[in-house]
Amino acid sequence: MADKIFDFINQNKERFMDELFDFLKIPSVSADPKYKNDLINCAKWLANHLKSIGLDAQVVETKGHPIVRASGKGGSGKKLLLYGHYDVQPPDPIDKWTTPPFAPNIRDGFIYARGSTDDKGQIFAHVKAVETLLKTTGKLPGDVIFLIEGEEECGGNALEDYIRKEKKNLACDAVIVSDTSMYDEKTPAITYGLRGIVAMEITVKTAAADLHSGVYGGAVANANTALAHIISKCIGLDGRIQIQGFYDGIRPLEDWEKKNFAKLALNEKAFLKETGAKRTFGEPSRAILERLWASSSLDVNGMFGGYTGEGMKTVIPYRSTAKITIRLVPDQNPQKMADAVAKFIKSVCPDFADVEVAGPLSAAEPVIFDVKDKMIQAGMNALKAGFNAEPVFIRSGGSIPVVNTFWKELRKPIVLMGFGLDSDGAHSTNEKFKVDNFINGIKTSASLLANA
Amino acid sequence: MADKIFDFINQNKERFMDELFDFLKIPSVSADPKYKNDLINCAKWLANHLKSIGLDAQVVETKGHPIVRASGKGGSGKKLLLYGHYDVQPPDPIDKWTTPPFAPNIRDGFIYARGSTDDKGQIFAHVKAVETLLKTTGKLPGDVIFLIEGEEECGGNALEDYIRKEKKNLACDAVIVSDTSMYDEKTPAITYGLRGIVAMEITVKTAAADLHSGVYGGAVANANTALAHIISKCIGLDGRIQIQGFYDGIRPLEDWEKKNFAKLALNEKAFLKETGAKRTFGEPSRAILERLWASSSLDVNGMFGGYTGEGMKTVIPYRSTAKITIRLVPDQNPQKMADAVAKFIKSVCPDFADVEVAGPLSAAEPVIFDVKDKMIQAGMNALKAGFNAEPVFIRSGGSIPVVNTFWKELRKPIVLMGFGLDSDGAHSTNEKFKVDNFINGIKTSASLLANA
Repeated sequence: MADKIFDFINQNKERFMDELFDFLKIPSVSADPKYKNDLINCAKWLANHLKSIGLDAQVVETKGHPIVRASGKGGSGKKLLLYGHYDVQPPDPIDKWTTPPFAPNIRDGFIYARGSTDDKGQIFAHVKAVETLLKTTGKLPGDVIFLIEGEEECGGNALEDYIRKEKKNLACDAVIVSDTSMYDEKTPAITYGLRGIVAMEITVKTAAADLHSGVYGGAVANANTALAHIISKCIGLDGRIQIQGFYDGIRPLEDWEKKNFAKLALNEKAFLKETGAKRTFGEPSRAILERLWASSSLDVNGMFGGYTGEGMKTVIPYRSTAKITIRLVPDQNPQKMADAVAKFIKSVCPDFADVEVAGPLSAAEPVIFDVKDKMIQAGMNALKAGFNAEPVFIRSGGSIPVVNTFWKELRKPIVLMGFGLDSDGAHSTNEKFKVDNFINGIKTSASLLANA
Repeated sequence: MADKIFDFINQNKERFMDELFDFLKIPSVSADPKYKNDLINCAKWLANHLKSIGLDAQVVETKGHPIVRASGKGGSGKKLLLYGHYDVQPPDPIDKWTTPPFAPNIRDGFIYARGSTDDKGQIFAHVKAVETLLKTTGKLPGDVIFLIEGEEECGGNALEDYIRKEKKNLACDAVIVSDTSMYDEKTPAITYGLRGIVAMEITVKTAAADLHSGVYGGAVANANTALAHIISKCIGLDGRIQIQGFYDGIRPLEDWEKKNFAKLALNEKAFLKETGAKRTFGEPSRAILERLWASSSLDVNGMFGGYTGEGMKTVIPYRSTAKITIRLVPDQNPQKMADAVAKFIKSVCPDFADVEVAGPLSAAEPVIFDVKDKMIQAGMNALKAGFNAEPVFIRSGGSIPVVNTFWKELRKPIVLMGFGLDSDGAHSTNEKFKVDNFINGIKTSASLLANA
């Protein structure tokens, strides 16, 4: 039967890609209000598509962006919940894209488009797997529910509210999530741990309004100077975060993890080539992989003060802002972390400035799953079949807030099987998704569903 | 005769203001290419207005924004050149304006609009003075030339080229410039010294492209961190610039200046109230007035890296930028200063980043004039008549690049008689110009022209 299923997938490859391209053309940028209607259109397109393959689908209105829900019946008594998101990251800076972010195209075996890997391409692989089973075997073995949200990239909580409200109807045997990465180009993986996240915003003020730098320069402080001093005090030159308590509460690696981390040991030279960094950075006592997967980190995602347009403006900015996010690992707590960060920033703010620290503006707890779980083992088998390669267990430095919610509300294993690559540029320009990984992802999902 | 002239000015106050409002309504923002046509329209409006009062006026095309030139003949054999600029600063952030920047209106005795004090209102006072003389006495005592440029706020050099080319035809007895400030609300002043300026841009890079802060956070450096470290090393917490050689070459104050600075002694409490600063900042060994008028300064006019839009974007920016300007005083040299700044910044750039320092992107030498000069003394007499108050000699922390050019090419005294106030918010939001100062400015100019 697996042959018949895989044959169907191979034969329909071109059509599957054309359909994915239609999905990718819709600029569903959730963080920016100007794309609101595109989100609505994207949800409608997706619900219609799910109906067209034979599922019962609907667009669920929320107080934020809508949710797409679809379901199909099987007979085995098992039920799998397939999660994904149809919203995408902002495409800025647009001029750095080789081809426009919402004009998908294939180059060197990769699909280039915003959302190709994160997460439209990945969730669409599951959609095509369900279609494949229905068209080749005429039925689904077990029940499936798709739950595809539109607020993953903007920290919205519409889906969280919905899961809490629909908890009973969503009861299932496992949640399947494809919003993570393979270990490398050849090695599929199940991610058994995710970092948490806390978003905060720092605003410093040094005067009542912007001032002329000729008239006042030399006797009045500049908000950019104040912010630079604060940030330089938070982050040491070696990369160690200087905030008191920042590394507190980190759960030590288990023995099997130590061995696994050592086996997977990231190649530093390749890592530097991949990122273009001059050297690695971060907490010196931890190896690179441990810094990424099993330690907290802090980044200034955005920093701005004064005149940022073309030409020059001889101004002393009175206000300067930093948008920061902190990643956490078990057993760190988002609120406790936010408190420590706010306390430290206030303590290092120069006396010529006032500082406001807002946050958590959004937050997610770190999570970790038991790799010996039956459904997680079934996921490993499906990956082996779909990719024809030996999968590994990995953790991820990223955060998927909804995974926390599923875990908290449903208490069922969450199988994070990613079909993307870290080098796909998920939140960067020229985002891409390998065509082979899209097809192998469909095969993996079909294998998993066929045995559920 | 002075009575007749002043009476005419008082009687025509409302009409003068209406005409100024028409001038202020044109958004002639020179630093931003999107206003290019507004600059052209503004130049045309001004040339037509100068023709309407009886001068021979023309719009001179340049490779940048046009220059407006106008002239009128007198019989005394003397010739005064009246300089001003019709371009204005960018109005950002527009949402901080109580009324829109290009919708002039009067509140509490002030005209609110971008360009009201810098410099449309001030140059227009001279235009109305010429009109007044022509309409009350039927003629001009000496020759006048207006030279009004459109690139003062964007560091363009069209006027500089023009002055060099037209040097012979522009030969005059003095250049009158009203683009500075009064000492305070009650005390008119002649500015005998201006700081120079050097504009530079610092760009740091830490990777090949923006990276996902979940996937890479904790092991890769962030360009914002690098920039923050560089800026914090340039500017001490007390405000002293840490760049080697930054205060080299500053000419000591003369004895009369020491006395004059002491007499003018700026009130620190009032200064803090005016700016909204928590405390003064800067080179600790110098008094505030000396820091502003007779010492070099450095400001980060703009700083930006990563995501600066709405919401959040979990990105590690690979690039971060600071726009800086340095003010210089006699006998400092712009190129030497730029070299010292670039050298220091390169020396403090963290090893995880690459830095590029561009500049001087524009530059002007500092200037200082002999206060005993005959024309400068005539300016003091005119201010006394126009404002009915005792004027003082001051220096300015600002820079007027064209003053250098006039001095270099014409070698005639440049009389800097400002009708604005430091608190007018020249480069800030809610820019304003006091109605009384506009009217007294017309009277001052008419007095000066009547005796030329």
